Amino acid sequence: MLDNKLKEQNNLTIIEDKPEVWKVEPSTTAKNCRNFIRDIVDNLDLKPNPEKPVIALSLGDPTIYGNLTPSEETIQAIVSILEEGSCNGYAPSVGYENARAAVAEYLSHDGVNINTKDVILCSGCSSSLEHCITVLADGVKNHNILIPRPGFPIYRTLAEAIGVSVRYYNLIPENNWEADLHHLESQIDQNTTAIVLNNPSNPCGSVFSEDHLRNILEIAYRYKIPIIADEIYERLVFSGEKFVSTASLNSGVPILICGGLAKRFLVPGWRLGWIVVYDEIGAFENIRNALICLSQRTIGSNTLIQGALPSILQNTPQSFHDELINTLSKHAQLAYEGLQNAKGLSPFMPQGTMYMIVEIQMQKFPLFHSGLEFAQKMMEEESVFCLPGDCFAISGFMRIVLTIPEELLQEACVRIAEFCNRHYVN
Amino acid sequence: MLDNKLKEQNNLTIIEDKPEVWKVEPSTTAKNCRNFIRDIVDNLDLKPNPEKPVIALSLGDPTIYGNLTPSEETIQAIVSILEEGSCNGYAPSVGYENARAAVAEYLSHDGVNINTKDVILCSGCSSSLEHCITVLADGVKNHNILIPRPGFPIYRTLAEAIGVSVRYYNLIPENNWEADLHHLESQIDQNTTAIVLNNPSNPCGSVFSEDHLRNILEIAYRYKIPIIADEIYERLVFSGEKFVSTASLNSGVPILICGGLAKRFLVPGWRLGWIVVYDEIGAFENIRNALICLSQRTIGSNTLIQGALPSILQNTPQSFHDELINTLSKHAQLAYEGLQNAKGLSPFMPQGTMYMIVEIQMQKFPLFHSGLEFAQKMMEEESVFCLPGDCFAISGFMRIVLTIPEELLQEACVRIAEFCNRHYVN
Ligand SMILES: Cc1ncc(COP(=O)(O)O)c(C=O)c1O
Ligand SMILES: Cc1ncc(COP(=O)(O)O)c(C=O)c1O
Repeated sequence: MLDNKLKEQNNLTIIEDKPEVWKVEPSTTAKNCRNFIRDIVDNLDLKPNPEKPVIALSLGDPTIYGNLTPSEETIQAIVSILEEGSCNGYAPSVGYENARAAVAEYLSHDGVNINTKDVILCSGCSSSLEHCITVLADGVKNHNILIPRPGFPIYRTLAEAIGVSVRYYNLIPENNWEADLHHLESQIDQNTTAIVLNNPSNPCGSVFSEDHLRNILEIAYRYKIPIIADEIYERLVFSGEKFVSTASLNSGVPILICGGLAKRFLVPGWRLGWIVVYDEIGAFENIRNALICLSQRTIGSNTLIQGALPSILQNTPQSFHDELINTLSKHAQLAYEGLQNAKGLSPFMPQGTMYMIVEIQMQKFPLFHSGLEFAQKMMEEESVFCLPGDCFAISGFMRIVLTIPEELLQEACVRIAEFCNRHYVN
Repeated sequence: MLDNKLKEQNNLTIIEDKPEVWKVEPSTTAKNCRNFIRDIVDNLDLKPNPEKPVIALSLGDPTIYGNLTPSEETIQAIVSILEEGSCNGYAPSVGYENARAAVAEYLSHDGVNINTKDVILCSGCSSSLEHCITVLADGVKNHNILIPRPGFPIYRTLAEAIGVSVRYYNLIPENNWEADLHHLESQIDQNTTAIVLNNPSNPCGSVFSEDHLRNILEIAYRYKIPIIADEIYERLVFSGEKFVSTASLNSGVPILICGGLAKRFLVPGWRLGWIVVYDEIGAFENIRNALICLSQRTIGSNTLIQGALPSILQNTPQSFHDELINTLSKHAQLAYEGLQNAKGLSPFMPQGTMYMIVEIQMQKFPLFHSGLEFAQKMMEEESVFCLPGDCFAISGFMRIVLTIPEELLQEACVRIAEFCNRHYVN
């Protein structure tokens, strides 16, 4: 049956018979694509105590318990767009011009001035990060990127899938989770093509000071390494703290800022993210064009949300943002106090975000060989589940999500304290 | 300033000073990411005739002129979801279970039986295609995929961006744009890991017969090469024609079917696509899992659309689909007749989709050296723009979009005919 003549004419090899059992193997990219949280969680034997209802302090989705909802303005903005009927067709792959302008305006505060042409809309901040890592780092050329430890595991997932390796730089718990500048610098080599910053931080809940940001950018400038600034928690900081955008520092370092609606507007499922190409020195001309080209592969994000974006960003009242922050800050306080009653834990009071990181003094819990086992047993006995620090590349810690309703959070803290006090050995 | 000691300890090379002018270069992937339509169109000198309003027959977006709109049921489904407030958080990365079930049900007709577990929702059919090409073809291993000529250029864009090369197989105009089976087979080598089918076809408007599909699948089976079936125009076929899904043939060939809401439901901007892992013989176990993993990189598609998907698919009345088809088929008839008056053109009557392909007898237009020049001059003189076949990897053709309002389409055909008759040389 093989048309060998034709094949030879076309200078093509004739393929051998393939084995009878047909198994298709995924590509290297697909094989290298790992979900580190799931890898860890799926390997835990998570059986809750049937006597106690489960409380999940693990899910970074603020909407699941229904206590935190998007603003009425946000919902109405979509309804209006639906009624208008003008946003059902394809948008430009980088997004509608007026939606990009609205993001530029929204991010232009505290002396920062963003232009519409520098904004690219993406399908969630995850896609923003994917495009930024893909454009700056080259698997073929053995590039690496620097990412924070502890940190959000998606940076590693996205990099390794395209053959780019990651190198961790440490955050120092006792320095308010600032980056260890020496360690960061030591991780740089000639193949390092980006430093990922995540400020405010998931999972630490920490907020970098202006001085600290300057110190990091100074290193980036010295080594001529661009920054990917994951600012998805921008302005989600508690009273007395200040969010400083990397863009506000006039550092001369070219920066790709990633953000989106997910957290501050409480609509993570809507998948509206953005990239800002922030480039004071003209280093990113080719990068901007390449990002535009990458956006054309999958043609951006949902047009209803894009159409509503100007209203969402402009009309959501300040009181909405204030209330969210008040709630989160109150929950942080509650959890912090609640966990004071737990022997062997050291909670870190967050300065912002939706998370609190807690150190587990593992030597006080000789029954458990790891933070993983600690988390598993806490689920088994107390039906409370927190993500072990291992999900964020750090052992002996756990992360608590602060978005769940107050009573549940309080109940969870009581159960965590009982669990700790039961197993604590001095 | 370099912390060389620390670097040596860490076994890292100390980087050289970088040049003073800081220019960041995009990665290989980003450089290889090309938009072939834009590459061509941007190189045309498109100046319309100021005396005549422009008629764009080039844009594959059915919604732009406002004459084709989504069903009332579709709009209401989203409004209900917004009011419920239950679909603002993260969905599973493969999509809500009930949305996937609705797609499975929607595609289970004519003897095809799709299971919920086989459906993965994506951000538009473009993302579906991206995941399918990425999972089956490996840039690192020098894989290639077969794609149709003429065909939609995104297959090449997606493949080449990840280092996968494409090989064209010809469609035969005089055989109703069926694939040239000999040629297709001759393009296969041991590195071929997928054959992309697009049925019904953009840009040909053709619909494959069951027999022809069987012949293609028989080759795929013989060589053990999986199929990527781009069925975004499924059931968008004119009266008397029948759409046959690759899944209905019981061919034993493992197939990834790509589709979405964009065309048949007239909401391309909403970015709701899907992949169906259709695998009768268990060849795709690892592929399914790898696709799930790939979906976790960017966490799928908008949750409002997902939440509304069961209503959209179930409640959109058959009359909506019938009307759309009647309109398209009427427009096809109009354009076909209109172009009979144009000397030197050979329109192909489409069997479905939203397009008509037209051959330009270039030897009859000695003034123009290429179809590109033909398109450019037609814009200059008549303010009518069609995509040249070159955008679809075939020269001497052009594609006409049939979704524009009837009067405009008629006017466009009159102008095209005048243009042709003016320049035709016997
Ligand atoms: C630090 C950080 N970056 C990015 C993301 C992803 O955001 P999105 O849901 O918009 O993709 C998250 C989500 O939890 C996050 O915590
Ligand atoms: C053949 C074909 N496949 C895929 C697509 C992309 O569809 P989507 O807009 O859902 O990404 C198109 C869009 O025109 C198309 O014509």
